[in-house]
Amino acid sequence: MPVIFWVVPVSGVITVIFAIFLARNVLKRSMGTPKMKEIGDIIFQAAWAFLKRQYTTIAIYSVAIAIIIGVLVGLLGGTEVEGLSALDIGWRTGVAFLVGALCSGVAGFIGMYIAVKSNARCAAAAQKSLTEAVNVALRGGAVSGFLITALSLIGVTVIFFAYGGATNPEIAPHLIVGFGFGASFVALFAQLGGGIYTKAADVGADLVGKVESGIPEDDPRNPAVIADLVGDNVGDCAGRGADLFESTAAENIGAMILGIAAYAATGNIAWILFPLCVRGFGMIASMIGIFFVRAKENESAMSALNRGYFVAIALSVVGLAVTVYFMLGNWWLFGAGVVGIAASVVIIFVTQYYTEWRYRPVRSIAEASKTGPATNIIMGTAVGFETTLATALVIGVSLLLSFWMGDMSGVHGAFGTAVATMGMLMTCPYVLSMDTFGPITDNANGINEMAGAGPEVRKVTDRLDAVGNTTKALTKGYAMVSAGLAAFLLFQAYLDRVSFIKFGESGLYNIVDIARIEVFVGALLAVMIVYLFSSWAIKAVGKTASKIIEEVRRQFRADPGILAGTSKPDYARAVDITTRAGLREMIAPGLLVVLGPIIIGVVFRFIPGYDAAMAVAAVLMVGTIGGIMMASYMNNGGGAWDNAKKMIEDGQLKDDEGKVISKGSFAHQAAVVGDTLGDPLKDTAGPSLHVLVKLLATVTLVMCPLFIVL
Amino acid sequence: MPVIFWVVPVSGVITVIFAIFLARNVLKRSMGTPKMKEIGDIIFQAAWAFLKRQYTTIAIYSVAIAIIIGVLVGLLGGTEVEGLSALDIGWRTGVAFLVGALCSGVAGFIGMYIAVKSNARCAAAAQKSLTEAVNVALRGGAVSGFLITALSLIGVTVIFFAYGGATNPEIAPHLIVGFGFGASFVALFAQLGGGIYTKAADVGADLVGKVESGIPEDDPRNPAVIADLVGDNVGDCAGRGADLFESTAAENIGAMILGIAAYAATGNIAWILFPLCVRGFGMIASMIGIFFVRAKENESAMSALNRGYFVAIALSVVGLAVTVYFMLGNWWLFGAGVVGIAASVVIIFVTQYYTEWRYRPVRSIAEASKTGPATNIIMGTAVGFETTLATALVIGVSLLLSFWMGDMSGVHGAFGTAVATMGMLMTCPYVLSMDTFGPITDNANGINEMAGAGPEVRKVTDRLDAVGNTTKALTKGYAMVSAGLAAFLLFQAYLDRVSFIKFGESGLYNIVDIARIEVFVGALLAVMIVYLFSSWAIKAVGKTASKIIEEVRRQFRADPGILAGTSKPDYARAVDITTRAGLREMIAPGLLVVLGPIIIGVVFRFIPGYDAAMAVAAVLMVGTIGGIMMASYMNNGGGAWDNAKKMIEDGQLKDDEGKVISKGSFAHQAAVVGDTLGDPLKDTAGPSLHVLVKLLATVTLVMCPLFIVL
Repeated sequence: MPVIFWVVPVSGVITVIFAIFLARNVLKRSMGTPKMKEIGDIIFQAAWAFLKRQYTTIAIYSVAIAIIIGVLVGLLGGTEVEGLSALDIGWRTGVAFLVGALCSGVAGFIGMYIAVKSNARCAAAAQKSLTEAVNVALRGGAVSGFLITALSLIGVTVIFFAYGGATNPEIAPHLIVGFGFGASFVALFAQLGGGIYTKAADVGADLVGKVESGIPEDDPRNPAVIADLVGDNVGDCAGRGADLFESTAAENIGAMILGIAAYAATGNIAWILFPLCVRGFGMIASMIGIFFVRAKENESAMSALNRGYFVAIALSVVGLAVTVYFMLGNWWLFGAGVVGIAASVVIIFVTQYYTEWRYRPVRSIAEASKTGPATNIIMGTAVGFETTLATALVIGVSLLLSFWMGDMSGVHGAFGTAVATMGMLMTCPYVLSMDTFGPITDNANGINEMAGAGPEVRKVTDRLDAVGNTTKALTKGYAMVSAGLAAFLLFQAYLDRVSFIKFGESGLYNIVDIARIEVFVGALLAVMIVYLFSSWAIKAVGKTASKIIEEVRRQFRADPGILAGTSKPDYARAVDITTRAGLREMIAPGLLVVLGPIIIGVVFRFIPGYDAAMAVAAVLMVGTIGGIMMASYMNNGGGAWDNAKKMIEDGQLKDDEGKVISKGSFAHQAAVVGDTLGDPLKDTAGPSLHVLVKLLATVTLVMCPLFIVL
Repeated sequence: MPVIFWVVPVSGVITVIFAIFLARNVLKRSMGTPKMKEIGDIIFQAAWAFLKRQYTTIAIYSVAIAIIIGVLVGLLGGTEVEGLSALDIGWRTGVAFLVGALCSGVAGFIGMYIAVKSNARCAAAAQKSLTEAVNVALRGGAVSGFLITALSLIGVTVIFFAYGGATNPEIAPHLIVGFGFGASFVALFAQLGGGIYTKAADVGADLVGKVESGIPEDDPRNPAVIADLVGDNVGDCAGRGADLFESTAAENIGAMILGIAAYAATGNIAWILFPLCVRGFGMIASMIGIFFVRAKENESAMSALNRGYFVAIALSVVGLAVTVYFMLGNWWLFGAGVVGIAASVVIIFVTQYYTEWRYRPVRSIAEASKTGPATNIIMGTAVGFETTLATALVIGVSLLLSFWMGDMSGVHGAFGTAVATMGMLMTCPYVLSMDTFGPITDNANGINEMAGAGPEVRKVTDRLDAVGNTTKALTKGYAMVSAGLAAFLLFQAYLDRVSFIKFGESGLYNIVDIARIEVFVGALLAVMIVYLFSSWAIKAVGKTASKIIEEVRRQFRADPGILAGTSKPDYARAVDITTRAGLREMIAPGLLVVLGPIIIGVVFRFIPGYDAAMAVAAVLMVGTIGGIMMASYMNNGGGAWDNAKKMIEDGQLKDDEGKVISKGSFAHQAAVVGDTLGDPLKDTAGPSLHVLVKLLATVTLVMCPLFIVL
C-alpha cells in the first residue's frame, strides 16, 4: 500500500470532524421568534414524513432488485473469477447494491436534515446581518456537502477492501460495481420523487396563489405554502445529495476498473487506488476553500463564494500534482487532471453567461416578455437549446485533450479521461456546499415571509435567494459536464467488464460498431428513452400540481376565512396530497430507465446474429449524449427563464421610452409563465437526467452478464 | 435494360399530362368576386417577390458551392474511377449539384405557383359547396405533388444516363451524388427561409392583431395579414415541395449506390434501376388514388382523403410485387418493401392519435389550459416528448425487420432497408397532394375572411382548414419516418463510398466504432448541431416576428384610420420587412448544417491517429437520430397544441359543471399561447430538421474525399 494512501482515511476523518464542527455551529444559533421556530418545525416534520414514505417505497424496490441482481449475477456471471464461486459473486454484488443504496439514502437524509435545520436559523440570522445569513447558509450547505462526499469516499474504500481489494486488487473493482448501481438507483428515485414534489408544490402554490387569488408568494394564507417550502428541502437538498453521492461513487469505481489494466502491467496497486487519493486531496482543498468565504456587508455574496471556489481550485491543482507525483509519476496524467479542473472553471463562466441577467441571453428573454408569454417561451427555448453548444464544446474538447494525454502517458487514452473526471470532481464538496446554499436561503426567504418579517429583512434574503439561484445553476452545469467527462470512462469500464466476462481479461472487447443494425436501433431507442423519461417527469409535475390546485381551491371555497386571514388553512392536507402524488408519479419514469436498457439487451440477446452487449453499449453511449444535451437545455433554459423574471422584478427592464417595466406588468406576467415552464425542466427533469446518465452506466455495468451469458 | 424499366418514362409522361390536366381544371375556375381576385393577385405578387429574392440568394451560394465541390472533388477524388480523369469527376459532380439545385428550386416554385393560383379559386368554390372546395384544394395540391415527384424521378434518371449509367452502371451512382446534395442544399434554404417567413408573419400578425388590438384573425385591417397569407405559400408549399423533392431524389440515389454491390455480383442492372421503377409504379398508384377522392357533402373531407390514400396504398403493394417479380425475383425483398408501406400506414394512425382532439393527448393539453398558459405548455411539451416513443418504435422495428429480410434475401441487410424506404415513398405524390391541400384551404379561409364572406362560407372553409391541419401533421409524420428509414440506407451508401475511395471497391469499410474518442465526440457534436440549428431557427422566427409587431404597431399609431377601417394599411411594407428578415435569418442555420460536418471532418483529418471519415459517419448517424427525435417532438407537439386550441374554439372543452369553455376565455387564451409556441416548432424548425437529416447524408456523401484523401 503506498504511504500516500493514508490521505484517504485521514481526510475522511478530518472531513467528518469538520462537518460536525460546522453542524454544531449552525445548530446552536437562534431559530428566531417562536413563530419562526414553529414554521421551521412544521417544515421539518413534513419533510421527514415525505422522506420516510419515500424511503420505504425505495427500500422495497431496492431489496427486490438486490435479490434479483444477486441471483442473476450468481447464475450468469459465475465463471468470471478464479477462487470465487458463482454464488459468492452473486451475493457480493447484491450486498454491494444494498450498501450503496443505503449510503445513498443516508446521503439524501443528511442533505435534507441539515438544510431544514439551517432554514429558520438562516432566516433569523438575516434579521441581524447579511454576513451572518451567508455564514449560516454556507455552513449548513457545507455540512451536507462534506458529509456526503466523505461518505462516498469511505463507502467505496471500505467495500473495496472488504471485497478483497488488498489481496486481489484486479478483481475487487468488478465486485463493487453493485455499490454504484445501488447508489444511483436510490439517487434516481430520490431526485425524481423530490423533484416532482418540489416543483408540483411550487407551480401549484404559485398558480392558485399568485395568479388566481392575487396573494404574494409564500403567503401564510396559501394552504400549499408549507408543501412548497418542504419541497425545496426534499427535492433540492435530499435529491441533489443522493445525486452527487452516486456521481462520486460511480465515477470512482469506473476509474478503478480502468486502472486494473495498468495494475496488471506494472503490479503497482497505486493505479487502482489513485482515484480515492485524489478525492481525499480534493476534500481537503475544498475545506480550506470554505474558510476563505468571509462575506462582507458591502460585497456581493457571490463574490465571496467565488473567492473560496478559486482557492479550492488552486489547491486542487496542487493536490493533484502531489498525488500524481507520488503514485503515478507521470506528468501527462497530471495534465489530464488539469484539463478536468479547467473544464469545471470554464463551465462556471459559461453557466453564468447564460443564466445571469447582466448578459445577453437572459436579457433577450426579458425583452421578449414584452410581447407576451409566447415570445418569452420561444426565446427561452432558443436560449436553452443554444447552451448545448458550450456544453458540447467543453465536454468534447476536454475529452479529446485528456484522452490524448492519457495516450501520451503510455497508459491508455481512456485512463486520461478518468483522471480528468477525478480532477474535475475534486472540488465536488465545495460545489455541493454552494448548491445547498441555494435552497437554504430560498427557504429562509419563505420563512421570513410567512413570519411577517419586515421589508428590510426580506431584502437581505431576497438578495441571498438570487445568489442561490445562480449557485444552483452552476452546480447543474458542473454536474452535467462531469457526467459528460465521466461518460467515456464509464463505458470504457463497461467494455472492459464485457471483455472480462467474455474472454477473462480486459481490453479484448473494444469496438461499438454503430453501423450494425441492432446497435443503431439501440442508439435510437436510447435517445427516445431520454425524451420519454423527460416527458413523464414533466407530466408528473403537471398532474401533481393540478391536484394541489384543486385542493387549494377547495379550501378557499370551503372556508372564506382563509383568504381573509381569520382562519388557518389545512397545510397538512396539501402536504399529504403532494407526498402521495409525488411518490406515485416517480415509479414509472424510474423503472423506465432501470428496465429500458435491460429489456433492449435481453430481447436482442435472443435474436440470432445480434451482439446484444454491443447494442447496450450504444444505448449507454448515445443515451449519454442525448441525456446531456437535453439536460443542458433544461437546466440552463430553466435558469435563464427564472432570472429573466427576477430581472423584471428587480426593475431592470425598461420600455421604449426608458420607463421601468415593473412587477405585475404584462411583461412580468409573461415572464412568470416562462419561469413556471422552466421550473419542472430545471428542477425535476434536468437534474434527474444527470442521474439517468449515471444509472445507464451502472445498470449496464452490473447487468452485462445478462447480455452475454444468458 | 429490363423491359419493365419503361415504366419510368411512361409514368413520368403520364404524370406530367395528369398534372397539366388538373392544373387546367383548377385554373379555369372562377376566382370569385373582384375583391377576392384582387387579394389573390396581391398574394401572388408578394410570394413571387419573396421567391425571386430568396432564389437569387440561394443561387449565389449554390454556384459558389458547385465550384468548390468541383475543384475539391476534382483534386481529391480523382483516383477513384478508371477511365475518368480527376477533372472529369470534379466537373460532373459540380454540374450534378447545380442541376439538382435547379430542379429543387423549380419544385419549390411549382409548389408555390399552383398553391397560390388555387387559393382564391378554392375560396370561391367554398361559396358554392364543400365538395367543390375539396376538389379545388385537392387538385391544386395534386398538381404540385405529382409534378414534383415526376421531376425528381425524371431528373435522377436523366442524369444517371447522362453520366454513363447505361455503360458504367457501377460508377454512375457515385457521380450523381452531387445531384442529391444540390437538391437538399436548396431544400434546406427554401424550407428554412419559407418557414421563418411564414411563422414570423403568423406569430407577428396574431400577437399584435388578435391579442393586442382585439381584431379577428385574417382581418383586412391588420397590416401583416397579407404577409401571413403569403407565408403559407412560400413556407408550406414552396418549402415542402423542395423538401420532398430532395427526399425522393437523395433516397433514390442512395438506394442505387447500395444496388451496385448486387449488380457487381450478378451483372444484372435491374439492381441499380429497381428504385426508379418502384417510384414509377408508386406514381401510378397515387394517381389512381386521387381519382377515388370524391367528397360528399355529408361526409368528412378527411374520410374522402383517407379512402384515396388506402387505394393508393393497396395499389402500391401490387406495384411493388410486380416490380420485385420482374426485376429481382426475390420475395424477401418484397417483404421488406411491404414493411415500409406498413410503416407509412402505422405512422398515420399514430400521428392522428397524437394530434386529433378526439384522443387523450390533445384533450389533456386542452384540459391543462384551464390553469393557464404555463400548464398548457408543460403538458404540450410532455405530449411532444412522448411522441418520440411511437416514432422510434416504428422506425426501429421497420429497420430491424427490413434489414432481416434483406439479409434473408441473400443480398444485404441494408438493401432491405433501402427497399423498405422505396416502398414507403411510393405513395409520396399522394401524401404531398394531401399536404398542399392544407395551405390551400388555410389561405382560402383567409381570403374569404378578408373579402368579408358570410359566416356560412367561413364554416365550410373552417372545416376544411381543420382537415388541412391534420393532413399537414400526417405528412410530417410520414416525412419523419421515411427519413428514419432512409437514414440507414444513406449511411450505408456513405460507408460504401468511403470504401470505394479508400480501397477501390465497396464493402471493405463498414465499421463505425463509437468507442473511439473522435467518433464519440463527433456524435456528441452532431446532437449539439441539431439543438443549435433548432435554436437559431426558432430565434429567427422570434426576431422576425418582433420586427413585424413593431411595424404593425407603428402603422396603427401613425394612422388611426387603419383600425377604424377607414384607411388601408400598408401591406407591402410588412411583406417587405418579413421578406428581408426571413432571408437574412436563414443563412446562419443553413450554413451551420452544411459546414458543421465538413469542419468536423477536416479538423479531425489533420489530427494524427484519428479516423476522420469514421467520425463523420457518426455525425451522420447520431445526428440523424437526434434530428428525428427532435422533429418528432416539434411536429407532433406543435400539431397537438394547435388542435388543442381548435378544440376549445370548437366548444369541446367543458368546465367542472359541464359548461362549455368558449373562445376568448382564460383557457382559450392559454391555448393560444401554446399554439404560438408550437408554430415555429412545427412549421419552421421541425420540417427543416427533416431536410437537415438528409443534408447531413448528402453533404457527407459528396464531401467524403475531403475526410480521406486531404
